[in-house]
Amino acid sequence: MSGNTGDDGRSVTSRVLGILDAFDIEHPRLTLSDIARRASLSLTTAHRLVGELTEWRALERGEDGRYSIGLRLWEAGLLGPLHTRLREIAMPFLQGLYEATRENVHLAVRDGNEALYVEKLSGHRSVPIVSRTGGRLPLHTTGVGKALLAWETCDHVDQYLAHPLARLTRYSISEPGRLRKDLQRIRSRGYATTQEEMTLGNCSVACPILDAEGRPIAAVGVVVHTVRVEPDRLAPPILAAAKGIADRLAAAGDDPYPGYVHDLDLTKRMRRRS
Amino acid sequence: MSGNTGDDGRSVTSRVLGILDAFDIEHPRLTLSDIARRASLSLTTAHRLVGELTEWRALERGEDGRYSIGLRLWEAGLLGPLHTRLREIAMPFLQGLYEATRENVHLAVRDGNEALYVEKLSGHRSVPIVSRTGGRLPLHTTGVGKALLAWETCDHVDQYLAHPLARLTRYSISEPGRLRKDLQRIRSRGYATTQEEMTLGNCSVACPILDAEGRPIAAVGVVVHTVRVEPDRLAPPILAAAKGIADRLAAAGDDPYPGYVHDLDLTKRMRRRS
Repeated sequence: MSGNTGDDGRSVTSRVLGILDAFDIEHPRLTLSDIARRASLSLTTAHRLVGELTEWRALERGEDGRYSIGLRLWEAGLLGPLHTRLREIAMPFLQGLYEATRENVHLAVRDGNEALYVEKLSGHRSVPIVSRTGGRLPLHTTGVGKALLAWETCDHVDQYLAHPLARLTRYSISEPGRLRKDLQRIRSRGYATTQEEMTLGNCSVACPILDAEGRPIAAVGVVVHTVRVEPDRLAPPILAAAKGIADRLAAAGDDPYPGYVHDLDLTKRMRRRS
Repeated sequence: MSGNTGDDGRSVTSRVLGILDAFDIEHPRLTLSDIARRASLSLTTAHRLVGELTEWRALERGEDGRYSIGLRLWEAGLLGPLHTRLREIAMPFLQGLYEATRENVHLAVRDGNEALYVEKLSGHRSVPIVSRTGGRLPLHTTGVGKALLAWETCDHVDQYLAHPLARLTRYSISEPGRLRKDLQRIRSRGYATTQEEMTLGNCSVACPILDAEGRPIAAVGVVVHTVRVEPDRLAPPILAAAKGIADRLAAAGDDPYPGYVHDLDLTKRMRRRS
C-alpha cells in the first residue's frame, strides 16, 4: 500500500506515533498547532490524525482546546508486563517496605542508560523527591540505577562509563574510575547506596531483583532524608523484599497476569449475566 | 490523502488503534495471526503495522514470538491527567488509608457505566479481590462505583438503571427500584457500602471526591473481609481522605503536574550537563 507513505517517506503509523511522541513530562498539554510543529506534520494532517486519536481516546481534548494523553491509552499501557507482572508481584513487598519506613519506595527497571520508575510509593511524611512512576533518571545518580548497573555485564558497564556522566549535585559521581569502584563495592556488599548524588539532603539504598542467572530484572529501593537513617540499617528489609519479589517472579513462570486469576473468570461472568 | 484509507474504508490510524484494541486483560499476549484476526486485518497489513509498532515499542515481541503491550506505550499512558494529576494528588491519602487499615484501597473514576480503577493499594494481609489498576467493574456492585453513581444527576442514574444490572453474587442488587433506594441512602449518609455484592465474603466502604459543584470527580474506597470491620467505623477516615483529595485538586487548579515542579527543572539539568 504505497498510499500509506506520504511525500516525506514517513508512514501513517510513524506519524501517529510521532503525535504520541510530541507529549512528554514537559509538554503534557498541547494545542493542535503545537502537535503539528512538534511532530513535523502539516496542520491538515495533524488535524485528521488527532481527530482519530481523540475519537479512540488515545488523546483527550480539554475545555481550553488543548490535548493531553487520553484514558484509553493509559488503560492500554497498563496491559503490558511491566505493570501486570512485575508491578503486581512487587506491590505487596513495596507496601511492606513503605510500612516499615514511611519513606519513598521505588521499583525500577533499566531501559538503555536510564532507570525507568515502574512504581513509586510515598506518603505525607516521605521526603520530597524528583522521581515519578513512568519517569526516568540516570543510573549512576540513583540507588535503583546503581543497583541495576552493578550487576550488569562488564561490557554494559564499560559502555555506560564511556558516556558523559551527568553531575546533578556536587556529590554525583561523574568520574568513570570512581563509579567503577563504587559499582564493585555495591556488588560485593549486595546493595547500592547514594549520598546526595541525586538531590541534596537525600540518600538512598537499593537492591537488585535478580533472575536465576544472577542478572538484574529490576531494582527496589528507598529514598530518605540523609539525617533520618543509616544505610546499613535500611538494607536488610530491602534485600528481603528484592529476594521475595525475585522468588515470586520465578514461581509465576510464564504467567502474564499472576495476580488476576479471578478477574478473568469475572469478565466472563459480567458478560454473561448483564 | 485518499491513499490512507484501504479497500474496506478504514484509515491506517484506525487499523493501528485496532491492533491495540486486540489486547485486553484476557488476551495480553498475541501471535501475529491472533492480532490479524482480532483486528480484522490481512496478515500482510498486520505484519507491517505490528513491525512499526514494535520498533516504537508500543508493542514488544517475546521470546516465544508473541506480542504484548510495550514499555513505550505504558510510559506514554502515564503522561495523562488520570495518572499525573488525580493519582499523584490522591496517593499520600491512599497510603494513609492503607496504613490505617492494611486493606485494599481503591481510587476509581466513572467511565460510562463502569468504575475504572485508577489505583489499587494492597498488602500481604489484604483480602484477595478482583480489582486491578486499569481494570473496570460495574458501578452497582462496587463501593467506589456506587459512590460515583449516587452523586450523579437523576438523568444519569435513570439511564444506568434502564440497563440490565449484572448479578455477580446472590447479594448483588439487580432490581432497579432497590438500587435507586440504596443510592438515595448513600447520598444522604455521605458514603457507599457494599455487602458481598461483588465478591462473597467481602464488603466495602467508599466516598465520592466531589468538585465545587458537588459532582463526583472520582471515588476512594476500602475493601475488607466482612467479618473484619463495621462499615460505620471505616467511613470517617475514607471521608477525610476524599475531602483531602478534593481540596488538593481544587488547590492545584489547572496545573497538569501538581507534584512535579522539580522534575521539570531536573530534565533540563540532565540535558545540559550530560
